[in-house]
Amino acid sequence: MDKELLLKNLRTVPDFPKQGILFYDVTTLFKNYDCIKEILDATYELYKDKGITKVVGVESRGFVLGAALAMKLKAGFVMARKPGKLPADTISESYSKEYGTDTVEIHKDAIDENDVVLLHDDLLATGGTMLAVYNLVQKFHPKDTFINFIIELPALKGREIFNKETEMTSLLQLEGD
Amino acid sequence: MDKELLLKNLRTVPDFPKQGILFYDVTTLFKNYDCIKEILDATYELYKDKGITKVVGVESRGFVLGAALAMKLKAGFVMARKPGKLPADTISESYSKEYGTDTVEIHKDAIDENDVVLLHDDLLATGGTMLAVYNLVQKFHPKDTFINFIIELPALKGREIFNKETEMTSLLQLEGD
Repeated sequence: MDKELLLKNLRTVPDFPKQGILFYDVTTLFKNYDCIKEILDATYELYKDKGITKVVGVESRGFVLGAALAMKLKAGFVMARKPGKLPADTISESYSKEYGTDTVEIHKDAIDENDVVLLHDDLLATGGTMLAVYNLVQKFHPKDTFINFIIELPALKGREIFNKETEMTSLLQLEGD
Repeated sequence: MDKELLLKNLRTVPDFPKQGILFYDVTTLFKNYDCIKEILDATYELYKDKGITKVVGVESRGFVLGAALAMKLKAGFVMARKPGKLPADTISESYSKEYGTDTVEIHKDAIDENDVVLLHDDLLATGGTMLAVYNLVQKFHPKDTFINFIIELPALKGREIFNKETEMTSLLQLEGD
């Protein structure tokens, strides 16, 4: 993978969404065809032999490359959304955040026990949202579940809140706190 | 295009998001690989010779196939988002809704005057949001702008609020009120 291409095009924004946070802005990767092709090709290589049947994108930056990834893997695409956004019957999972709790939902008929599922989001920080999506997807009893991020911030130890056996990849490991 | 395949897989949900609305639920198309392939292939045929350099997806269902479409067209992908979601400098456009006003934003450096832009969203109803995105994109002075939807509800006359010269396509024209 051409890491230099991605690093050169990735923007960092200081103090977003709040003071003291250095935000990794993937929109500058998304707007560049060479970068999205690089990300999709590299991710495809990681999962092409896993028999993926559904890619789950996490609202809402995970929607962007999630469906393109599904196309490449010849899989369906499923949205993990915030409460009240999905119109039909859902299964949900709540989780604690820094202040209060949050919930993610997936349509009840979106995944079944014959599926091999790839969860996708743009960035792994503390991992709370993805762990909730992972736990939610287990309620559908899929055959297997994989997790993929474009960027991981290892200093935030997001990986450690998952079971050690969880199969997780990220394309870029960057500094962050 | 295999319209029957799409119609067979599209779900309708009565009374969502409120009483009296029949909601066309594209998630049942998204979860089916054959359907997303059909939508992308058909849309690609419409735009493959237009020289598209940027696809703009409208938050957030427009993100799903927007980036996959950008990949097929060898274009970049740009998010049109609700206020406060984009981290860097933005240009914005406000518009009236049934109750109050709403705003859409695009990063200031996401589009330039050399771009040929394709705006994409899942569904054209009354058209207010897409007209705001269209007007917003004109502030970047692109060479040309096209608009595409998966579904159009002609009874709601969304098309009529655009200038007659606006180049707009939809794959499925369905009943709705």
